[in-house]
Amino acid sequence: CNSQDIDHILETQSALAVDLGGTNLRVAVVSMKGKIVKKYIQPNPSTYEDRIQLILKMCSDAAVDAAVSLNCRVFGVGVSTGGRVNPHDGVILHSTKLIQEWSSVDIRTPISDTLHLPVWVDNDGNCAALAEKKFGQGRGVENFVTVITGTGIGGGIIQQGELVHGSTYCAAELGHIMVSLDGPECSCGSRGCIEAFASGSALQREAKRLHDEDDLLMEGMSLKNEEPVSAIHLVEASHRGNGKAEAILRTAGTALGVGIINILHTVNPSLVVLSGVLANFYENPVKNIIQQRALSSAHSIRVVTSDLEEPALLGAASMVLDYTTRRTY
Amino acid sequence: CNSQDIDHILETQSALAVDLGGTNLRVAVVSMKGKIVKKYIQPNPSTYEDRIQLILKMCSDAAVDAAVSLNCRVFGVGVSTGGRVNPHDGVILHSTKLIQEWSSVDIRTPISDTLHLPVWVDNDGNCAALAEKKFGQGRGVENFVTVITGTGIGGGIIQQGELVHGSTYCAAELGHIMVSLDGPECSCGSRGCIEAFASGSALQREAKRLHDEDDLLMEGMSLKNEEPVSAIHLVEASHRGNGKAEAILRTAGTALGVGIINILHTVNPSLVVLSGVLANFYENPVKNIIQQRALSSAHSIRVVTSDLEEPALLGAASMVLDYTTRRTY
Ligand SMILES: [Ca+2]
Ligand SMILES: [Ca+2]
Ligand SMILES: [Zn+2]
Ligand SMILES: [Zn+2]
Repeated sequence: CNSQDIDHILETQSALAVDLGGTNLRVAVVSMKGKIVKKYIQPNPSTYEDRIQLILKMCSDAAVDAAVSLNCRVFGVGVSTGGRVNPHDGVILHSTKLIQEWSSVDIRTPISDTLHLPVWVDNDGNCAALAEKKFGQGRGVENFVTVITGTGIGGGIIQQGELVHGSTYCAAELGHIMVSLDGPECSCGSRGCIEAFASGSALQREAKRLHDEDDLLMEGMSLKNEEPVSAIHLVEASHRGNGKAEAILRTAGTALGVGIINILHTVNPSLVVLSGVLANFYENPVKNIIQQRALSSAHSIRVVTSDLEEPALLGAASMVLDYTTRRTY
Repeated sequence: CNSQDIDHILETQSALAVDLGGTNLRVAVVSMKGKIVKKYIQPNPSTYEDRIQLILKMCSDAAVDAAVSLNCRVFGVGVSTGGRVNPHDGVILHSTKLIQEWSSVDIRTPISDTLHLPVWVDNDGNCAALAEKKFGQGRGVENFVTVITGTGIGGGIIQQGELVHGSTYCAAELGHIMVSLDGPECSCGSRGCIEAFASGSALQREAKRLHDEDDLLMEGMSLKNEEPVSAIHLVEASHRGNGKAEAILRTAGTALGVGIINILHTVNPSLVVLSGVLANFYENPVKNIIQQRALSSAHSIRVVTSDLEEPALLGAASMVLDYTTRRTY
């Protein structure tokens, strides 16, 4: 078959990808080439029942769309979710408070029973690593780590081209690397985790604290009606010379950098890919902290910001697409 | 051949093992079965020239002993050393201040030229992990970590039965996992490393500080003439009700425990083997901190104290013995 045929096959062979985060539930139809053909977003419901129902409904709707309007052949469903996941059984073992009622959940069976498609499941951080490996900056890199700074902090580790899952599926729980013996409380119940210092929700907590003390907004800044205070205001206040905001962000960058050094001193990858909404903001602080505080043997590490728009969704899809590829070609 | 012959072969086939630590330089003749047939100890000289000369002299003497008095056939030399090591080239890339003048050192060539034997080199922590895998608690365990608390803190990581060296040979530099954004200064130039909180030299530093403030010795304790203050006095003072000594040791145990949790949340092994003089002291604090502060998915980790007398020497020997086995049988 000629290359146009192959292009056509790569366009029409596709996966459903589900990404379940602290805030939103997203479903997408993703082509073999890593193109997001269509995307659906809803707020993540706070109870198990509502969440499962919404996942099934969004997946069914997307599958119909794919077949009827998008001319895509869907081979399976890939699920990216917060929490510790046993990918062999398709079970979420345990989640932190960021996703309520989401422990000991078999997510594979209901999706597979409803859609009659094979289902793959992994942790959102691990999915992001798979996405970098297949479509992003991790292509062709044997040993790399990805760290995602969103509402929480997640991550994934690729060694010798494969995800590291660990003996009880809590490898690469990078958000819960601790960089302080005390430090702020974390969603996991401990203290001093990098998630509690540097995640979106940690920065929001600090922004609210400053705002409550009337110490956040600088001249020229205002909050629109009912606009929630967030990390964005902290960054803007810091740019406008707010010393307290600047100190909070400096500590956050140091904490993330030190946490990443701990990863370097454990598995010593050749590349760190930062993703998530705060990735760009953290890239330079992380590089600086590595030069200041890592062993000299680790200074040569490359730190980059992901160029993927949706690592978790693309990684979820890649579990389906890679399996399909191995089977079909 | 019968089993007595095999026993004889295993007794007489042997390796020279060299262990170069912050304090001492040790050389041993080690049998295939992991028996230390003879051991030689000298203080580690403080300059490169003296150190290399002493290593060559001790190895030559040991080789003569092995052949003439011990009836051992020496197949090669295994070197365990502090610092980052490139095991392929047999080069020490960089050491912290614990071993002076010990960076960019080709240790393989002089030994190999002098003894006319093949030479293997690795980091002391990695050697300890190899020893646990071949002779100790790591036998048959696919994924485990060893943490050695001596003068400094070292470690090694075995994944899928193999050492993790990392992209620039600074994987498993577990002593320089940081658990504080500030914290005490470390030999590596950074701060807050577990080595700076929980190593023998860290505890000695704190014991001296207490002693200088006349806060160390309790009733019934005394220092013999010129006896240096050390971690042992801190432990004894704590047992005798010294609250300041107890607080220092509690912080040290917490720091080590949090550092080990960071390893669990990165590679999630099924076993942690503690070794070194302080291993026994730290076993319970580390277990408690894991239950208090690790993700629940990591609570099932086993933490044990090594039953090997000389992990670094045995691991150094195992590099020779494993290679010999692969070649000879
Ligand atoms: Ca992960
Ligand atoms: Ca090591
Ligand atoms: Zn946490
Ligand atoms: Zn250090």
